[in-house]
Amino acid sequence: MRKLRMGMIGGGPGAFIGAIHRTAANMDNEIELVCGAFSSNAEKSKLAGEELNLHPQRVYASFEEMIQKEARLEDDKKMDFVSIVTPNHLHFTPARLALQNGFHVVLDKPMTFDLQEAKKLQQVVRESGKYFCLTHTYTGYPMIKEAREQVKNGKLGDIRKVFVNYPQGWLSNFLEAGDNKQASWRTDPSKSGKAGAIGDIGTHAFNLAEYITGLQVSKLCADLNIVVKGRKLDDDGAVILKFNNGASGVLMASQIMAGEENNLTIQVYGEKGGLEWKHSDPNSLLLKWPDQPMQTLRAGTAYLSEIAKHNTRTPAGHPEGFIEAFANHYRNFALCVKASIEGTKPKQEWLDFPGMEDGVRGMAFIENVIESGKSEMKWKEFTI
Amino acid sequence: MRKLRMGMIGGGPGAFIGAIHRTAANMDNEIELVCGAFSSNAEKSKLAGEELNLHPQRVYASFEEMIQKEARLEDDKKMDFVSIVTPNHLHFTPARLALQNGFHVVLDKPMTFDLQEAKKLQQVVRESGKYFCLTHTYTGYPMIKEAREQVKNGKLGDIRKVFVNYPQGWLSNFLEAGDNKQASWRTDPSKSGKAGAIGDIGTHAFNLAEYITGLQVSKLCADLNIVVKGRKLDDDGAVILKFNNGASGVLMASQIMAGEENNLTIQVYGEKGGLEWKHSDPNSLLLKWPDQPMQTLRAGTAYLSEIAKHNTRTPAGHPEGFIEAFANHYRNFALCVKASIEGTKPKQEWLDFPGMEDGVRGMAFIENVIESGKSEMKWKEFTI
Amino acid sequence: MRKLRMGMIGGGPGAFIGAIHRTAANMDNEIELVCGAFSSNAEKSKLAGEELNLHPQRVYASFEEMIQKEARLEDDKKMDFVSIVTPNHLHFTPARLALQNGFHVVLDKPMTFDLQEAKKLQQVVRESGKYFCLTHTYTGYPMIKEAREQVKNGKLGDIRKVFVNYPQGWLSNFLEAGDNKQASWRTDPSKSGKAGAIGDIGTHAFNLAEYITGLQVSKLCADLNIVVKGRKLDDDGAVILKFNNGASGVLMASQIMAGEENNLTIQVYGEKGGLEWKHSDPNSLLLKWPDQPMQTLRAGTAYLSEIAKHNTRTPAGHPEGFIEAFANHYRNFALCVKASIEGTKPKQEWLDFPGMEDGVRGMAFIENVIESGKSEMKWKEFTI
Amino acid sequence: MRKLRMGMIGGGPGAFIGAIHRTAANMDNEIELVCGAFSSNAEKSKLAGEELNLHPQRVYASFEEMIQKEARLEDDKKMDFVSIVTPNHLHFTPARLALQNGFHVVLDKPMTFDLQEAKKLQQVVRESGKYFCLTHTYTGYPMIKEAREQVKNGKLGDIRKVFVNYPQGWLSNFLEAGDNKQASWRTDPSKSGKAGAIGDIGTHAFNLAEYITGLQVSKLCADLNIVVKGRKLDDDGAVILKFNNGASGVLMASQIMAGEENNLTIQVYGEKGGLEWKHSDPNSLLLKWPDQPMQTLRAGTAYLSEIAKHNTRTPAGHPEGFIEAFANHYRNFALCVKASIEGTKPKQEWLDFPGMEDGVRGMAFIENVIESGKSEMKWKEFTI
Repeated sequence: MRKLRMGMIGGGPGAFIGAIHRTAANMDNEIELVCGAFSSNAEKSKLAGEELNLHPQRVYASFEEMIQKEARLEDDKKMDFVSIVTPNHLHFTPARLALQNGFHVVLDKPMTFDLQEAKKLQQVVRESGKYFCLTHTYTGYPMIKEAREQVKNGKLGDIRKVFVNYPQGWLSNFLEAGDNKQASWRTDPSKSGKAGAIGDIGTHAFNLAEYITGLQVSKLCADLNIVVKGRKLDDDGAVILKFNNGASGVLMASQIMAGEENNLTIQVYGEKGGLEWKHSDPNSLLLKWPDQPMQTLRAGTAYLSEIAKHNTRTPAGHPEGFIEAFANHYRNFALCVKASIEGTKPKQEWLDFPGMEDGVRGMAFIENVIESGKSEMKWKEFTI
Repeated sequence: MRKLRMGMIGGGPGAFIGAIHRTAANMDNEIELVCGAFSSNAEKSKLAGEELNLHPQRVYASFEEMIQKEARLEDDKKMDFVSIVTPNHLHFTPARLALQNGFHVVLDKPMTFDLQEAKKLQQVVRESGKYFCLTHTYTGYPMIKEAREQVKNGKLGDIRKVFVNYPQGWLSNFLEAGDNKQASWRTDPSKSGKAGAIGDIGTHAFNLAEYITGLQVSKLCADLNIVVKGRKLDDDGAVILKFNNGASGVLMASQIMAGEENNLTIQVYGEKGGLEWKHSDPNSLLLKWPDQPMQTLRAGTAYLSEIAKHNTRTPAGHPEGFIEAFANHYRNFALCVKASIEGTKPKQEWLDFPGMEDGVRGMAFIENVIESGKSEMKWKEFTI
Repeated sequence: MRKLRMGMIGGGPGAFIGAIHRTAANMDNEIELVCGAFSSNAEKSKLAGEELNLHPQRVYASFEEMIQKEARLEDDKKMDFVSIVTPNHLHFTPARLALQNGFHVVLDKPMTFDLQEAKKLQQVVRESGKYFCLTHTYTGYPMIKEAREQVKNGKLGDIRKVFVNYPQGWLSNFLEAGDNKQASWRTDPSKSGKAGAIGDIGTHAFNLAEYITGLQVSKLCADLNIVVKGRKLDDDGAVILKFNNGASGVLMASQIMAGEENNLTIQVYGEKGGLEWKHSDPNSLLLKWPDQPMQTLRAGTAYLSEIAKHNTRTPAGHPEGFIEAFANHYRNFALCVKASIEGTKPKQEWLDFPGMEDGVRGMAFIENVIESGKSEMKWKEFTI
Repeated sequence: MRKLRMGMIGGGPGAFIGAIHRTAANMDNEIELVCGAFSSNAEKSKLAGEELNLHPQRVYASFEEMIQKEARLEDDKKMDFVSIVTPNHLHFTPARLALQNGFHVVLDKPMTFDLQEAKKLQQVVRESGKYFCLTHTYTGYPMIKEAREQVKNGKLGDIRKVFVNYPQGWLSNFLEAGDNKQASWRTDPSKSGKAGAIGDIGTHAFNLAEYITGLQVSKLCADLNIVVKGRKLDDDGAVILKFNNGASGVLMASQIMAGEENNLTIQVYGEKGGLEWKHSDPNSLLLKWPDQPMQTLRAGTAYLSEIAKHNTRTPAGHPEGFIEAFANHYRNFALCVKASIEGTKPKQEWLDFPGMEDGVRGMAFIENVIESGKSEMKWKEFTI
């Protein structure tokens, strides 16, 4: 089948994640960028479109214009789906508009500005019958898929303990005082929402923990901190978790761990053994056993599960990284959309990308953590 | 000066830590074992003494007998200090008796059965004027001493965040059902005290965090779990910490992280940078900087602080381990006791071994955590 | 400027490296695949073209047909360059034909079937005035570029010692007996050339050593082995090296190190310090100092050299891998070709991709090693 | 049984290895130092003896005096064995004298000043019927013993390839110009013998390779270098090896790899799998498999071989290091000597310490490497 046609909202000059989305979408020859509304500033949007070799007519001054005009294009020309890479406060409206106009949607995380929006958007997705992908990158890594399989197949026994840690250090200073675009919107409650670090990276950690274990957090106890003077949103947090099977966990998310890059790690322990994964060595998965030597499973090997293999391009020893993990979500999403276009049934393994359920639970996580953080009581039931 | 003469209480057949104490004491040619009451079973004590080549007259049927008889020996023969390596419920009485009879004391951790005993023992130590060493092994590692120096010298700036994790997996099963001596007393409230994992290894983690940072925990929020069915004491716990300078922290201590050995790790972050140490690679200390490459400081090198060097025997690249760290406490303690005997002033660096303050704070940690664990309120002030 | 148009020779069904080339070329939105002769079997070529969504008229039955027909297309349609990903014996002829017909060329390594061909091709490249890129992937990694900068800037002082090791294990068995396409041509002297492992991966190691150090091998002593019974070409080798500044080195290349994946490593030592890079952790570069802590330089950080930064897409802590390294060569090559089309001068940093010099030296390396391997004398002068 | 009584020759002020020997001997409560001739300078010897709390009558002005006087002491007083820790040129004479006077001997490596002496000493050992231990430290590590067991039990299949690397950097400068005692004798042909780095550390690497594989080197090809100007002996070398089963190998030993500490590593590959051990992480042994995940075997675990367990003191996760490895040799030697005194048969596992065979082969290695280094021919048969 032909390549899918992608439109992009956001991702203009100064953006980081927009370029990642484009490269990821581009990677597997399934998708081509055909149009965009790259900035709320029409001039900036135009410049971005030129740089990306887009036809000037397909570079729009606003997302509304893009969605409406694209919707009216002929089927063999108009975009198939839209990728939305704006700050959090600009997720809901364009996503809803796109879905209601018949476009599938890829949306950067977290899902929306607040939980209420997320639940509304979930409803819109359901009604639209379109595919919706939320780019929680880390579940795109093949060894994370392998980790999930190991748990699902009972290799670790019943899960007892989860530890997930997402340390960054880039907000150790009051960076938002300067012109760092990444820092300024992420620390601005009017754009980022109620949460800082917990929303930006804590939701990744939360999603990863639930994805690998197949469990759901049922209550939690949060300690949120604003460490850097003058900041308005949390830049550091720790959350004690209880899962629906009785397992306990700890989640840490911080952007003031000076000197840390982006080293998300997760450890899961069951009755029979444990597993460990580190973003700094993403192609390895450690399995730890009480009475046998630790094993290091490696991406690209023959002994992995089918779903791990499906999400790898290179043989063992040829490291894949962040963009490839990101691209896995795009590829699986694209395979589903193509199947939908062709009227065929998607394979089970293609459906394995984060969606609206993950998004709603992520937004609920933010709100529950914020509420718990303010509470004098230890436990907060996880409510949606 | 001659070697110091050591007597030992506990450490008979089946014990683990007794042999470690003896080897550690033995290592630097400063100490010789001259007598012991190795078991409450007189026959077992005798057998242990024989195996250790002790003179039969110096192998005692009970610690009371040992302390009393040794106290009456001539100065050039009697033991200088006693090393107590019994389970927790048998710490206080022999330690007090030894101190009151003029002997310096090395005591295995945690200090006592409960906080009340610890405070009493602290009083006894003060009144005795004797040296008292509590073997929190991990602060004996040279790179831990270096870590403390880095913090003390302001290299990291004000401390903001501490994460200390002590994962073990050996109690993943109901081991106390069998004849594992280590498991059975540690999980028995009548011998171990109020806490299981939090007392056995959580106190190490707590002590390490306060040692490196020079800070004190001022309040905490604990989640304690009994994961293995039938167990009477916590085997897993997570504690959110607040320090007296406003810094936050997380402490984890678990003995049901299946597949984990004994990999205590600590990370400390300040305004300017972070540090990381892992027990699995104890001769390295990582320093992380926001805008400079991470540095790996190594034991035995010329660029370390004097106190780190003082606690090393071998040049860089010749790994020292657990016994050497243990031996550092014995050596520093011994150097102080020798100075005391010779009437000289101990060097500052010799005084750097854990003592009664650490012990009392450790017991307070246990009690505060236990109380917090039962509470519905989030925060518990750290009280002593 | 518009995307460059790429044609591909080879890379049909069963090929590994063809897909890597396409993904790498595709990554940075600079290049689009427009045509191909994917197999010497016309039917297979056609199928590959379909799968790649190419226009049927641009899928050719042979490389000769492709080059001739593309050469006659109009300028705004015809391919700009050709990427050749066939086995070694099919490098020279299509590359020469392409260059002589005015196409720039990307060629998989090693350059040709033998040294004589390589020298001829070098002449053709020179006469053509076209760009020629030889895909020695590993020099595409940003931390390898950083390593070269460190050496060039004298940080290590005069280089004294180089150790480069390329261990693989996939040919530990007589895999060529089965239907493994990768194994069968690589072990077949009529397709691979005079060398097995030394040609396939030894040339990568050799290229890497010369690239980082800026030195040239001047003599060598080789031990080549055929370890697996029945094999016709070396599957294991060790080479002692002497460089033109007097430095010594050791190069190992083996495909029978059972259990190894593809962990190319290099260590370089100078008067003042050493460096180490491992393919298994490609985003780190270790700098080792005699009297200062080891430093770990990381891709994506602000403190790196400009050329390292130029070859990275993501911020620190977002791992890039093999495909990105590959893509760096394509991107730099493409930037040069675009400049050539636009009549502008390429930036110095774009010119940093492996070319005909590397190719000729690589082929000379193979022939010198083969000859040395057969010789009873220790040293073989490195001749071209 | 009582502790064995040790006398020491060498190891006075400024020595490094003497203190290591004493600490190692001391570690397991099997041995006590009773006498010494610590320096050829009587005054220095006396001072060292005082510092070690020896009885003045047991501190001797020369090794001749010590051996003769100790030989005349009564059986319940005189030393049982002598530990010789002098520079290489002072190994043979005291060792022979000690053996001929009825003392068992522990000798630091390499065995003697030259091969001829080694063969003579071997004869003396045989005639004496005494135990002789050569302290090749690295074979004392429990995971090295495990590695040997894995090979012996056929887990890797027939061995095909060995790579052993011993990198140090401490002689990167002309250190012998100053007053570094370690540097000056090691670089002095009149004290060190014919070889520098190859003798000092290359022999360790050679011994380790033969120990783990159970193979013997049958021919070799050496490249020896004097890198630092003014130095008289090799400070860097690479040797290609052939083993008696046809396997190949590479051995590197260098003391000018600036920034390296003492990171001896070995990799062994067989038909079925490979193993890897690094001195920087001595309590781990990696087993690599072509079609199964890599395994990390750890010291102190229940799944190890009996001989690995016999050479460990602490449970898994409590790192042992260099001194413990050294102590394993002393302990096994001591257990054998005790058995000899008691007239019982030593256990097989006690006999596992390096002896005269290792010593003679080590000295032959030096001479063969030196000769090969000077030769223009590639291969030198390994002759003794």
